[in-house]
Amino acid sequence: MSSAATHETRVVILGGGFGGLEAAKGLRRAPVKITLVDRRNHHLFQPLLYQVATAALNPSNIASPIRHVLRDQKNVDVILGEAVSIDADGRRVILADGVLEYDELIIATGATHSYFGHDNWAADAPGLKTIEDALDIRRRVLLAYEAAERETDPEKRRAWQTFVIVGAGPTGVEMAGALAEISRHVLSKDFHHFDTREARVLLVEAGPRVLSTFPADLSEKARAQLVRLGVDVRTGAPVSQIDDHGVTIGGEQVPSRTVIWAAGVAASPLARSLGVPLDRSGRVLIEPDLSIPGHPEIVVIGDLASIQQANGQPVPGVAPAAMQGGRYAATRIKNGLKGKTTAAFRYNDKGSLATIGRASAVAKIGSLHLSGFPAWLAWLLIHIFFLIGFRNRFFVLGEWAWIYFTYERGARLITGPVHNLLDAPEENGETGKVSA
Amino acid sequence: MSSAATHETRVVILGGGFGGLEAAKGLRRAPVKITLVDRRNHHLFQPLLYQVATAALNPSNIASPIRHVLRDQKNVDVILGEAVSIDADGRRVILADGVLEYDELIIATGATHSYFGHDNWAADAPGLKTIEDALDIRRRVLLAYEAAERETDPEKRRAWQTFVIVGAGPTGVEMAGALAEISRHVLSKDFHHFDTREARVLLVEAGPRVLSTFPADLSEKARAQLVRLGVDVRTGAPVSQIDDHGVTIGGEQVPSRTVIWAAGVAASPLARSLGVPLDRSGRVLIEPDLSIPGHPEIVVIGDLASIQQANGQPVPGVAPAAMQGGRYAATRIKNGLKGKTTAAFRYNDKGSLATIGRASAVAKIGSLHLSGFPAWLAWLLIHIFFLIGFRNRFFVLGEWAWIYFTYERGARLITGPVHNLLDAPEENGETGKVSA
Repeated sequence: MSSAATHETRVVILGGGFGGLEAAKGLRRAPVKITLVDRRNHHLFQPLLYQVATAALNPSNIASPIRHVLRDQKNVDVILGEAVSIDADGRRVILADGVLEYDELIIATGATHSYFGHDNWAADAPGLKTIEDALDIRRRVLLAYEAAERETDPEKRRAWQTFVIVGAGPTGVEMAGALAEISRHVLSKDFHHFDTREARVLLVEAGPRVLSTFPADLSEKARAQLVRLGVDVRTGAPVSQIDDHGVTIGGEQVPSRTVIWAAGVAASPLARSLGVPLDRSGRVLIEPDLSIPGHPEIVVIGDLASIQQANGQPVPGVAPAAMQGGRYAATRIKNGLKGKTTAAFRYNDKGSLATIGRASAVAKIGSLHLSGFPAWLAWLLIHIFFLIGFRNRFFVLGEWAWIYFTYERGARLITGPVHNLLDAPEENGETGKVSA
Repeated sequence: MSSAATHETRVVILGGGFGGLEAAKGLRRAPVKITLVDRRNHHLFQPLLYQVATAALNPSNIASPIRHVLRDQKNVDVILGEAVSIDADGRRVILADGVLEYDELIIATGATHSYFGHDNWAADAPGLKTIEDALDIRRRVLLAYEAAERETDPEKRRAWQTFVIVGAGPTGVEMAGALAEISRHVLSKDFHHFDTREARVLLVEAGPRVLSTFPADLSEKARAQLVRLGVDVRTGAPVSQIDDHGVTIGGEQVPSRTVIWAAGVAASPLARSLGVPLDRSGRVLIEPDLSIPGHPEIVVIGDLASIQQANGQPVPGVAPAAMQGGRYAATRIKNGLKGKTTAAFRYNDKGSLATIGRASAVAKIGSLHLSGFPAWLAWLLIHIFFLIGFRNRFFVLGEWAWIYFTYERGARLITGPVHNLLDAPEENGETGKVSA
């Protein structure tokens, strides 16, 4: 640490997601020295992660090396590292393998999934936050079809062909729609011993409607589009148990070998080391200028921040909110360097979108409520626009065009460990019988 | 097992590589019931696997689900399973989770890499046979640059920036050329604390020349093209030791944190259970009709087979040889069903190709010896032609065009475990010091 002698302001940004990247870009022309730390080498376009999990896109289509994105910005160093805790009084970030001093700190480490105290469900109901998560879900889904092809017992085959998605937010709705399409179109010709179109996709939601953050009329339209795709939508249906036999919904036991968790999020555990009040999900209760109480040099943005809009509603954990937070944090630092103060952060809600399937989506854009093909087109254009890098846009559009016209999905690979997932839940050896 | 009552011939094919797929396709119109078993769900186009390892292509660009390739062939069942041993007298294949009976057996399980008795080298010098191998090598290469960016000790940085490839066959030559290009072009703008163009790529070969199976003039041309790319080529240089500090070549210790094994292959261990003579690499010494001694109903094709050409040279372990073997095996079964015999297998050597870098390759096609751009163009066209599926051809050509014109490689993701690779070889904690 040698730069303390100079007077250049040292800005540390933790996390290279939507918020962290926008903060770095916003300081492009500022007289500061930025260090952006992420434990991954890539920025991930999470809104499309479910398409990796459902074999439509490749991991690299929705991820870009962070240092490549920022390669032309000379005042930023990107380092691969993991922040373990923050020493707010000492103005230091403790990394797994080092220490970073800062004058200004922007924390944008996001959220992970939460099982609401049932952490033992994680093994049987994986969530979707990282590329590894997506490849794990892809492996489970594709293996379920392989196992069904070899299974001769109709009841066991039905458990392999039952896909349960817990949570009907955008991720749950998008997963359910994609899984229904896979069984009906993509795989229908590839298996000879059973009809993939009999696969059952169950979308389970504890709350009263799907897409609860959308207007009620769009929730209803989304539900109708899901039902048309063959999804069994259950609202007001809390899950009480998940294990390798399946899920329990109310009193009903649903045998299923593939359960996907899309229900809860929990803030990155880094927040705890700040010693400031957190909300129930572990998010930091921040000041109107996104700083934490007592430390104006520390701001928290994105999914890790808990803050209310003017209308009393919480700012949602979505990419636009994180990006606006990142730009605000950069402006606030630049103003501070000039001795100016910055007005409180205001979230500008431009709308919400969720896709359900082929030419099927819902969208709220300003006061406009769209569904079906127009919503799907809006969804497509907006996602392509925000995807980082012309290269990714080009290849993602190519993959989507291919899928649209052929119903084929290109990334149908099973990689990584296989046989642990194929073991029978109770007894062994029965599932594997071959009927040649 | 119910089909014994009928008289339909049961053909089991082990392995869905080039040989196994061609055998299945060759039996398309034969009155047989085929079961193709592979422990992967995908056919892998291995000649382009080094491009996944060097971040040029996505795994799914060079792999296709086997059941999708064969979806329209009604007399074949594809099952995901692992063959453990063969009960030749009982005409049964023992799977990890079942048993398969056969009337005709085609074994095409290929080869893995061999460390010539130094299996302890495997952890520090991974080989390249599967998609997981390729992603492991990609992770190591990209992490070596990340570690170099954070390393302040020049000697340690040099070890991170020294890439050693052991073995100068086609895979070794292709890896060396690609790694040299990455350091000189792809990454040169992305790192701020060191010059990636100083990276050292060392290609080490025990034999007297690179590409020893090619004509001597093409070996010389390949060497010159490698040197022009900046590769340090060492022939007649056997490696005597590999560990996490680097490699020992002759008496010289070369510090390196990234060593890649491209030297030896060993046949699939399944061959041992046949109880017939094997060669030094574990390959099956087969009869002129590719069957094994005493069992005309069992044939071995591809990398697992040891057989000589008419000129006394061994049939090489390359894709065209495996494909010809597969077609021969299918013809032999069809002839057998009609009571006809089949003339001995003859390998038709159409040539060899190896690419070195951008617009740089060597090719022997018939009596024609090409190098430089014409060889590269031949390489490109032939690989695109043999790649399975129009979809893969389309996207691979797209990726190549992108790389050619922009020098960018799209698949620069580090996925999977990271920090175990970044640990210092002896002492801990030193490498991780951050210079912010």
